[in-house]
Parts: sequence; C-alpha cells; structure tokens
Amino acid sequence: MDLLSIKDPSFLKGMSIKELEVLSQEIRQFLIEKLSVTGGHIGPNLGVVELTIALHKCFNSPKDKIIWDVGHQSYVHKILTGRASQFDTLRQFKGLCGFPKRAESEHDVWETGHSSTSLSAAMGMAIARDLKREKHYVVPVIGDGALTGGMALEALNHIGHEKKDMIVILNDNEMSIAPNVGALHNILGQLRTAGKYQWVKDELEVLLKKIPAVGGKLAATAERIKDSLKYLFISGMFFEELGFTYLGPVDGHHFEALLENLSYAKKTDGPVLLHVITKKGKGFRPAETDKKGTWHGTGPYKMDTGDFVKPAKKQPPAWSSLVSETVRKLARSDNRIVAITPAMPVGSKLEGFASEFPDRMYDVGIAEQHAATVAAGLATENMKPFLAIYSTFLQRAYDQVVHDICRQNLNVFIGIDRAGLVGADGETHQGVFDIAFLRHVPNIVLMMPKDENEGQHMVYTALTYDDGPIAMRFPRGNGLGVPLDQDLKAIPVGTWEVLKEGYDAAILTFGTTIPMALDAAQILGKQGISVKVINARFIKPLDGKMLTALFNENIPILTIEEAILQGGFGSAVLEFAQSQGFYHQYIDRMGIPDHFIEHGDVACLLEEIGLTTEEVVKRISIMARKKQQRA
Amino acid sequence: MDLLSIKDPSFLKGMSIKELEVLSQEIRQFLIEKLSVTGGHIGPNLGVVELTIALHKCFNSPKDKIIWDVGHQSYVHKILTGRASQFDTLRQFKGLCGFPKRAESEHDVWETGHSSTSLSAAMGMAIARDLKREKHYVVPVIGDGALTGGMALEALNHIGHEKKDMIVILNDNEMSIAPNVGALHNILGQLRTAGKYQWVKDELEVLLKKIPAVGGKLAATAERIKDSLKYLFISGMFFEELGFTYLGPVDGHHFEALLENLSYAKKTDGPVLLHVITKKGKGFRPAETDKKGTWHGTGPYKMDTGDFVKPAKKQPPAWSSLVSETVRKLARSDNRIVAITPAMPVGSKLEGFASEFPDRMYDVGIAEQHAATVAAGLATENMKPFLAIYSTFLQRAYDQVVHDICRQNLNVFIGIDRAGLVGADGETHQGVFDIAFLRHVPNIVLMMPKDENEGQHMVYTALTYDDGPIAMRFPRGNGLGVPLDQDLKAIPVGTWEVLKEGYDAAILTFGTTIPMALDAAQILGKQGISVKVINARFIKPLDGKMLTALFNENIPILTIEEAILQGGFGSAVLEFAQSQGFYHQYIDRMGIPDHFIEHGDVACLLEEIGLTTEEVVKRISIMARKKQQRA
Repeated sequence: MDLLSIKDPSFLKGMSIKELEVLSQEIRQFLIEKLSVTGGHIGPNLGVVELTIALHKCFNSPKDKIIWDVGHQSYVHKILTGRASQFDTLRQFKGLCGFPKRAESEHDVWETGHSSTSLSAAMGMAIARDLKREKHYVVPVIGDGALTGGMALEALNHIGHEKKDMIVILNDNEMSIAPNVGALHNILGQLRTAGKYQWVKDELEVLLKKIPAVGGKLAATAERIKDSLKYLFISGMFFEELGFTYLGPVDGHHFEALLENLSYAKKTDGPVLLHVITKKGKGFRPAETDKKGTWHGTGPYKMDTGDFVKPAKKQPPAWSSLVSETVRKLARSDNRIVAITPAMPVGSKLEGFASEFPDRMYDVGIAEQHAATVAAGLATENMKPFLAIYSTFLQRAYDQVVHDICRQNLNVFIGIDRAGLVGADGETHQGVFDIAFLRHVPNIVLMMPKDENEGQHMVYTALTYDDGPIAMRFPRGNGLGVPLDQDLKAIPVGTWEVLKEGYDAAILTFGTTIPMALDAAQILGKQGISVKVINARFIKPLDGKMLTALFNENIPILTIEEAILQGGFGSAVLEFAQSQGFYHQYIDRMGIPDHFIEHGDVACLLEEIGLTTEEVVKRISIMARKKQQRA
Repeated sequence: MDLLSIKDPSFLKGMSIKELEVLSQEIRQFLIEKLSVTGGHIGPNLGVVELTIALHKCFNSPKDKIIWDVGHQSYVHKILTGRASQFDTLRQFKGLCGFPKRAESEHDVWETGHSSTSLSAAMGMAIARDLKREKHYVVPVIGDGALTGGMALEALNHIGHEKKDMIVILNDNEMSIAPNVGALHNILGQLRTAGKYQWVKDELEVLLKKIPAVGGKLAATAERIKDSLKYLFISGMFFEELGFTYLGPVDGHHFEALLENLSYAKKTDGPVLLHVITKKGKGFRPAETDKKGTWHGTGPYKMDTGDFVKPAKKQPPAWSSLVSETVRKLARSDNRIVAITPAMPVGSKLEGFASEFPDRMYDVGIAEQHAATVAAGLATENMKPFLAIYSTFLQRAYDQVVHDICRQNLNVFIGIDRAGLVGADGETHQGVFDIAFLRHVPNIVLMMPKDENEGQHMVYTALTYDDGPIAMRFPRGNGLGVPLDQDLKAIPVGTWEVLKEGYDAAILTFGTTIPMALDAAQILGKQGISVKVINARFIKPLDGKMLTALFNENIPILTIEEAILQGGFGSAVLEFAQSQGFYHQYIDRMGIPDHFIEHGDVACLLEEIGLTTEEVVKRISIMARKKQQRA
C-alpha cells in the first residue's frame, strides 16, 4: 500500500495477518530507504515493525495511550499515524522529530528521549483514567535496557503494588544501545532460553503432574523440578512477584502470537507484562548482524552494502575518542584509574580502554545514579574514577553529584560528553544545562577545552588533580584537527589564557564558541575595534586574577557560552564583578535562551538562537559605542 | 560498662552473648536518656542496637567497610566507635553529626543523609578492594524502605551481575519513615510470614519430599506446593535471581542468630543478602508501639511518659500543614487534584488529605524520580498533580523535572518543602540548591511566600495556574502566626510587592529573610537611610516592571536569599540588570556561600554565614556611602 496515504491507524483493523505481513515488509523497505539518506535510529525501528503494527491493530490510539520509552523506536508509529510523508526531513531542522512529539500528533501522548520514564508516565495516566472513570488502555513499551534504569524499577514496584490496569510491553531485544548488563538481563536471558511457554503457571502444573509416583526417586525428581522451575516459573515470577501478570515470551515478529497475547492481555485485570522478543535491525542484514551497536543510530549509509557514507575528507579525532584514549594512556601508568559508563561504551568510545583494561572498566547499564555513586565509592578508596557520561544524562545523577561526590569532596573525574547543542536528537538531548546545574555545587571544578590538544592536557589535569571532583565538558563530534603534544601536562586549575590581545573590548568564552569569538575579533579589528579574546577554560573556579585585571581595564566584556544563560558562565562573571565591587562594567552575555532547543543541524540552531559571529560583532559594537557615548 | 570509655569496637571480640545483651540494654538506656534531651532519630537507632553490635563484633571496622544507608541509624555505631561522650551535642552546631561523617571518625567510611546510596558506594569500594588485591569485607546496611529507591535497585542489579563479594544487610523494619509501599515490601512481607527458614532452597526439597505418592491427588497437592513455593522459595529468589545468596530472615534482636548468619555470610563467595528483621523503637514502649512514624525522628521527650516536650507557647501552623491543608481544601471543589509523596506523608502533613481523598493520594515510596514523572503523566491527562517533596530530595528528580515536567510544559504543582536551611539534619538536608537548579529550567514558575497567608494564596495560584509547571518553596518549621484570609485568591504570576517604601536603597528578598530585611530597614531608617523593602515572591519570572522602575531610581539594591548564591535569585537580578542594559547599578547579594552548610540550629548557622540583620545594615551602608562618594 501507499504508506504516504496513511492518515491514522484505523485501516489496520480490517487487515488479515497476510496483509499485515506485506505491510511490515513495505514499512521495513521504506525505513531502510529513507534512513539511508537521513540517518536515524534504524536498528531499534526495524526491530519493532510487527510489534508497532500489532499494537495499533489491537488498541485504539489516541484513546488508548501507547507510550514509547526512550522514544527513538517510534518511527513505525509515526508512519502508522500519518507522518510517512515527512520522513525526508527526519531529525532535520523544522523537520520530523526523531522522538515522540506531542505537537506533532495526538498519537504522541508522551515525549521521551531519556530512558526509563514510560512506566511512571503510564502510572500517572492510569491513575487519571481511573479517577475520571474513563475506560481505555495504557500501554507503555519499554526495552530490556531501559528496565535497568532506577526509575523504571521504582515504577514497576509501585504499579505492582497498586495493581493498576496497564499493559506493559517489554521489548526485549537483548541489546539496547550496548549489550546490556545486569542481573535483570540474566533473568530475561533465562526466560528466553525457556522457549515460548506462554502460561508459565500452567506449565508448572503440567510438570508437577509428571512426577513419577515412586517414593524412592522423589529427591532426584525434585532436583529436576527445581531446574525446570528455575527456567519456567521463577523467572517470570520476578514480575509476578512484583504484582504483574506475566505473559510471554512471544516472538515479536510473529503476528499471530503477538495478537493473541495482546488480546489476552486486554482481558486481564491488573498490570500485565507482556514479554516480547524482537531483533534489532530485523530485515536489514548489516543491522541485524550488528553486535557492537553500530546500527543503533547512524548517519546515511549505502542500502546495498550497508557501508556508511563517509565524510569527503578525513575527520579530526572524535572528542569522545580523544578523551577516552587519553584516559587509557594515563591508565597505563596509574592503576588507580577506573572507567565507568552508564550503558554508553560505544558512544563514549571506551572500547579500547575496555579491551586493554577489562577489569578496570564498568558498564553499569542505564543507571546514571548508580554510576555516579560507584565512582564516589571508588574515590573513597583512593582510586581515580573516570565517569564517562553525556551532559544530558548527567542530569539524572544530579543528586549523586551533589550529595555523594561533591559533598564528600571526592576525586571523581566526570567526563561530560555531548555538552552543548547535539543537533538531530533535539530537545531531550541538548547538553545545555550542565553549567547551570553544576556551577552552584560547592567543591567542583568545571572546565572545557578549546581544542583537542588542550583537551588531552585537561584529562591529564583531571586525573592528577586530587583536591576533589573535577569535570570536563566537551562537545559532540570531532575536534579541530590541531596537532597533539606528545607530553601531557597539567593546566593550573582556575587559569585562563589570552588567545588574542585587544584594548577596546574583551570576549570571554570557551570550547566550541572560541572560533566564533576569534572570527568576530578579526572583523571588529578591521572596524577599528581591538578585541581581546580570552579562553575562559575554567568555568569554575574563574580566573579571578585575570578577571580582576580585565575589569580594571574597564573595557566592555562579552561572554559567550553554548549553554543556558540563566545561572551560566556569563552569570558567574556578573557575580564576580558584583562581589568584587566592579559595579560599573559593560558586560553582555550570549548563550542559550530560556527555552528548550529543538532538533536540527547545530549550525541552523545556532543561527536560530543568534549565537553567531555576526551577533558577536553587533553586541561588541553596541557596547563600545555606548561606552564611548558615556565617556 | 561505661560507654564513655569505649575507644573502638575491638572490645566486643571477647564478649559473650550474655555480655552483649547487657551492653545492648546499656546502649538502649543511654540512647533513650540522651535523646530525650537532644532529640534525634530514636526509633531507627533503637531498632539496630543488636545488629550494630553484631556487625562490629563480626567485622573489623574500619578495615572492613560498614556503610550505613540513609545514615540516621548510625548512633549505636557512633557509640561503639568512641563517640558516646559527644551525645550531649548531638545534631547541635559544632556538635556530633546525626549522620555518618568522615571527618568525625575513620569508622565513618561513607557519608549519607539521602536514601539508597549505600549499595552503589559499596560496589565502588568492592571494585577498589579487588583491584588493589586487598582482603576485607564490604557491608552496606540498607533498610527495606531505601530498597525501593531506584538507585538501590540499579545497584542490586549491577552487583548481582558482577558477583562482587559483598554482604548486604537488609534491615527490614517494615516501616521506614512512613509505612512503606510497593511490591518489594509485599515480597519482604511474604518472607517474614514464612518464618525463619534460612535455607529456603533446602526447605523446598523437604517440602517436595512430602508430596504424597498418590497419582490422583497430585493436582491438588501441586496447588499446595505452589503456595508454599510462593512463600518459601520464590520470594527469596527475588534476590537469588538477581545473583545474591539470600540468607535469612533472622531476628535482628537475637545475637546468636545474627552472629551465626554473619559468620556464614563471611564464608560465602559473591554477593550475599542477609535479611534481618528489626523493630523500630525496640525497648522503648512509645517508640515501639508507634504506627504513624512519629518516633522516627523527634525533638526532646519525657522519658517516663513518652510525651514530647511541647514548646512553651502555641506555635503558628507548620508550613507543611498549611500547604497540604490548603491543597485539601481546594481538592474539595477540584477533583482533578491528586497528591503525590515519595514516602513523606507524615513529614508533608498529608494525613488529612489522605483520609479525605484516599483515592487521590499516592505515596509512591522512596522514589522521587518516579513521583515526579507520575505527576507529569497525570498532567498530560488534564489532572492537577501536587507533588509534595522536600527541597533536598527534589534534587533526585532534577532530570524528571527538566525532561518530563518542564520540557513538556505540564501543569504540575511542586510543593518544595524544607527549602532553605533545615538545621539539625545538616549538610545532606539543607534545602539550599533548589533555586539554582530550577531557575535555569525553561517554563517553570518558582515562588516563595512571605507568610502563611500569602502561602495559602500561592497554593491557590499554583492549582489554578494552567500554563505549565509551577513550584512553591517554603521553609521547615512554622509560619509567622499571621491571620489567614477566608477567601483564596490568585496572585498574578511574576508580580512582586512593596512591603515598605524607601528612597535611598532597596532590599529585594522573599520568604524567611523578609523579617531580617524589615528589621534592617528600620535600623537604617534611624540612621537616615530610607530603605525600600520588596517582597520578591516570584523568583522566576522576576517582576520585570517593578525591577525596571527600581533600576531607574538608580539606588543601591541588596538581594537576600536563604539559598546558594551561585546562580540564585541575586544572580537573576544581576542577569536582568545586564540584559536590560542597566550597567551602572550598585547591586549586592547576600545568601548561602559556596560551601556545604553543616548541622546546627538555624539561627547559629545564619550567624555563621553572616546572613543577619547586622550584615544587611552593613552592606546597605557601604553601598549608600559608595554611591554618595561617586555622586
């Protein structure tokens, strides 16, 4: 059928299983084609084609609430709810969002991006439904990886206790972003090996009936039963004990099994957990055979070979690689260094570290809180933990950073990856809050390098620092291609660097916005305004000495940061000026305004929010003029 | 024995069980006496007397790491590690901390205050131990309530997977702070009813042997076995399936059982979970029979009657009561209002609401993240959730506030209790970060009332606001005793109020620091400096109109807040001045400095950090003089 003609999922109701199977293949083909151009989360979406179709056939969205945990697997849902025609703009500026988006469709009842929120949201919706005496289904779809997130476990516990009607779909693809870890995964693994017994409890009864009625052999039989129990009964009982009716596991690519189980789930009172086994990348060989998670989310690729479309010229090292490989290098001479990642070994480029130091690398699963406090625990024992975490996910460990790491003033190195705008992932993933949520925490040092050479020195600085927590934020993407020094050196904490001298105005900035500042300074120079550019690489503590000297020059100052303005670096400069009694400074601040930043190419986004060279030129000019007028 | 003479726990090694029992009674008596004067966490500590003694007898602290989750149950540990003589100063300024404190003793290997961190910390210490090839035990002690916290579940999962040697003591007192909820609790309950079967697996075998060898009756028997299994086998299997060796449950007040099980645990490889049943308040009748959690933490009481020492005069209503009762009143006419608390129904004074609206009140257990996102889920369905949460615990839901509530701009009312300094609980509980970690989040409204009358109007404002999330912070303790209006009214969002006119300087402040400002204004008035005092009740958004008018007056401005200065309200004022082009203002800021604030009486703490009327007078005088000099 013509996928572009789909308006809503109601057409599915009348379809036969044969027709659904044909539709699946059409959707798969569509996704493989479209994503080969735009890139996107191909693996997860190919895995849920049949599941999504089955859900929309069985339930009546949006009356029934289908809630996609994490949300990057919602492409099929988007196709079935009338958005196929927008896939050419997927994840592009003003285009189709790669995650559920309430403004896009009434079928997107809950927005996600971060993991493990679906069950709590579903609980809220179920409570609301029951209070309003409405009748509809609430159907969160959560992956096995997301289930290791603490809040998902909190929710399971609470939902089971309250016995709310809800159908939880456990989308078990064994791999979330990386092969996931943890005992929950083991349990799911056992269930998987148990085959397709849908009615575990009934099966037990059948088994028990087979006990031979011969007294003497009972013990040995009991042994056998115990094994069977382990595989059949107890594993499902993990959820059953939490108060859920456990159904499955069912083959997530088999419509009959899916529809039968969903239909049974609808008839079951109280919370149901339907365990669905899916295969990431199903139907596209390169993605299906992927073991490393490379096909979780990709850029453009060649449909025939599965080769990724390489950039025209060789790229400088990725920031994640630079940081992780520098940590690895240092770990060779300091055996106290231990790396911790919450399920992002690939994204954080820790594979090299892991293979060289397998016993000093811990992937703790999607469990940011635990990750941060494991790091704190290590530090109490004089180890040097490196917590590799994305800016946006560090949000989930804010309390652990405050209460466990900073309050105890422990030597934890937090490598804040994907700081600043991340682009295509959009609102849920922009790393724009970290300065504002870290800067006010006592004891922490927060820094950002201007390029990968300074970056490697900062890693060294962090891992040789022993006066408390120290964090380095660095952007998504690649470095600038500068040469790397052979020998690493520590950068004195709280020292800035003058990149360009100037006498009429000064720009204080760091990291990704330094090139913009230098460009603007050049333009302004040609206009006769001599601009000093300072690499304010330490966001906390500030370089008080340099800042005081600068204030004493009494020239206009512009701060620039790729981070939220409220409480950010610019505010730190204002606070410093105020606290040091510099009441009469011309200071202006550029950064991320007070709203959430949508998805799109980073350059477009910067343009949209006015974080551009032109704006820098304009702001400096205005201040310089004002000052002149006043003088 | 003389408890004051104890230097370290080594003396326990040679003690007989009889002697340990005598010691328990002495410690109990000591605690009951001392805490009757100082107040403190009497219930939890009386519950762990034998357990703590047994731990220190079995293990060699500080070589072996005993980690107290939450930490308010560490008094016995403090006595056994040489701190009995300091109990007269318990929780007082510069006195003994009510929580583990690394600076106090080498036996305090991990500091806590917030719940559910012990397992992650233990994991970090266990990894460190193994990498350093050291041999010692790591023994986290966690309550059944704390086990519902997401990060504890994340940790259980990871520890089980890694099979690290560790002895987790599950201190199951059925009640944490409130009767706790959740399915985990049910599981523990089932275990409890199962009696003292220590080797569940063996018991199963015994049971299976009892199956009568009569074919026809097998089905019924199987049914019976299934029930037994449920009680005996599967419940322990919750932990066993996660990879732990499960021991217990044992009577936590019975030394022989405790010592035997601890000794067995020490010999067991991999992670062990020892399930210990204790009774909160054990040995002190009023606390032992407490069902409401009143004796969890108390002020001074009479030892003989168990009556609390009442304040000399009648107190104004507690802030928590005022807020919860106002919500309750509004809930009578708006059936969309639902209250959510993460295990704090008593502290948040929600008992009245709960009894009147049992189906609109959800205690989700110690699960702040889940609580926040349940609220978000409710809001997507047009309900009016009231999230009752302490400032310090809201830290743990930061990501949910950002990602789920604010990003989706949902109508959630966050009642931020215990905002500002909380006093005796100290560093881990001071509610001083909320402004800094909320103010930068787009879409949120943040306010704080000047007194309980304004407080009730703000509750009304929040629950009738439908333009996104709105939060009201309010302090620990009681209101000012002002009369309460009969009719509630909405306060226009973003409007401030002039409390006192003045022409030479202005103070911008809100909440608890308003009296200080008014006092200072009076003193300054007598010195000929006329000071305007503004109730800046909206921290976000600011009252831009009033602020602009004020800047145009060009008088010195002092901001005061009982919150961390970095990124706080004062910074918001600086940001506003800068962004509106008011470059030449005399602005000074008072608030909490950049370090963690210890425990003690709030008045002492305010004095210590210079948040006093005298300092306000001084700061205003300095600015007024400077301005005069410049003029």
